[in-house]
Amino acid sequence: MSLSAEQIGQLRIFAEELAEAAAAAIKPWFRAPLAVEDKGGRLYDPVTVADKAAEEAMRALIQARYPEHGILGEEHGVAVGSSPLTWVLDPIDGTRAFITGLPLWGTLIALNDGTAPRIGVMNQPFTGERFVGTPQGAWCNGAPLQTRRCADLSSATLMCTTPDMFDTEARKQAFAQVAEQARLLRYGGDCYAYCMLASGFVDVIVEASLQPYDVQALIPIIEGAGGVITAWDGSSAHNGGCVVACGDPALHPQLLQMLRHAL
Amino acid sequence: MSLSAEQIGQLRIFAEELAEAAAAAIKPWFRAPLAVEDKGGRLYDPVTVADKAAEEAMRALIQARYPEHGILGEEHGVAVGSSPLTWVLDPIDGTRAFITGLPLWGTLIALNDGTAPRIGVMNQPFTGERFVGTPQGAWCNGAPLQTRRCADLSSATLMCTTPDMFDTEARKQAFAQVAEQARLLRYGGDCYAYCMLASGFVDVIVEASLQPYDVQALIPIIEGAGGVITAWDGSSAHNGGCVVACGDPALHPQLLQMLRHAL
Repeated sequence: MSLSAEQIGQLRIFAEELAEAAAAAIKPWFRAPLAVEDKGGRLYDPVTVADKAAEEAMRALIQARYPEHGILGEEHGVAVGSSPLTWVLDPIDGTRAFITGLPLWGTLIALNDGTAPRIGVMNQPFTGERFVGTPQGAWCNGAPLQTRRCADLSSATLMCTTPDMFDTEARKQAFAQVAEQARLLRYGGDCYAYCMLASGFVDVIVEASLQPYDVQALIPIIEGAGGVITAWDGSSAHNGGCVVACGDPALHPQLLQMLRHAL
Repeated sequence: MSLSAEQIGQLRIFAEELAEAAAAAIKPWFRAPLAVEDKGGRLYDPVTVADKAAEEAMRALIQARYPEHGILGEEHGVAVGSSPLTWVLDPIDGTRAFITGLPLWGTLIALNDGTAPRIGVMNQPFTGERFVGTPQGAWCNGAPLQTRRCADLSSATLMCTTPDMFDTEARKQAFAQVAEQARLLRYGGDCYAYCMLASGFVDVIVEASLQPYDVQALIPIIEGAGGVITAWDGSSAHNGGCVVACGDPALHPQLLQMLRHAL
């Protein structure tokens, strides 16, 4: 469904209310001793009390204000709505960063209109940074974001959360080829890295094994800042999986050429 | 030379003054477009205007206040003093974090008494965190730090800035063996990771290719919080190189056994 600028404006304010509710639920647990449980996935995937509490807080607000909207959350799954609008929630993206005390995790909130995520929020309450993207642009704490120009991979700063996320030999090789040609590689970013790309400090992100809720909120932020983010074959990144983001759209075709065969 | 508790107290205050001078020189350049140059090392090693300006600011303060002290700085080398006391300075540890916008870099300041670093400061001005260690203890913004107990590698959270820092096949293999046995591995920490170990959120750090100024400031912080940090063979970590830190001293012998042969 098509949202008017006025609807986007109202829903953006609500998305930021969700971010504040999540922050209130999470902050007491950051850098506190944590009980974690293993969900049994391939990567070690800690789930914290904070994660669940934050998602419950956001779900309660959505169900009270927009009971017709759908919800897709990391912890509590899908709630189908009568409206095509769906909130896609990851209360703590970057759980490894969270449990090691690093302020690179974030609360991810996307509003998907049934076609694509139209509003995205990444909230980092420890540093006090809130990144927001809409069809009108992208901002950090109200300041407009703009990706930087970098059309040449040999000049590019590349980020990736961990090389362990590439789960086939072809994917490992494809990433290694990109890393070899990039000027500089930095590991360990999670959602924060995508926001640094939107801010013009990172040129390329190549990742894999992502869930839809890991990526949907970041799409409006990157696109609103002038960047591009897709799957490795150039199709939509909405479903997660293997994702590539470029600050400079001119660099994107070269990355697809290097990654496409490994998807 | 042996420093009295009173001398330590005075020099600690001065070390924090150095941290503030460095922060004032660096902060305008964080998340600004940066001109970087390659010093030609094996790893890409960006040197920023901020790095040089911060070291100059700290050197000027030391030369004015303690002209007899020696200085070892990343950017401007060694100034020999008539006193055995030497300030060991890394204005921006984590230059890759810095240029990618991540708040995980820090200003490292150590005071070495000719035998070992006795005072260590890690200052992160974006998050507003200052970690300090002395023979009397370790603190973050005045709050005491304490490492956590974790005597079993299979329960341990492991950090390492990048797997690319291991520059021989034996070192790569030794690190891989530790990583395989650890519960969780997180890349991308620089000096911030050592402070999270001192704070009780990380159990083990295994790194290589470090310089003395990368590590000396962190030693009093980790030891002051109850942890241990040495070279891979258990000898002093003062000279950098291959370093292992454990929050729980009981875990340290097991790590040395796994790493020693690769030193």
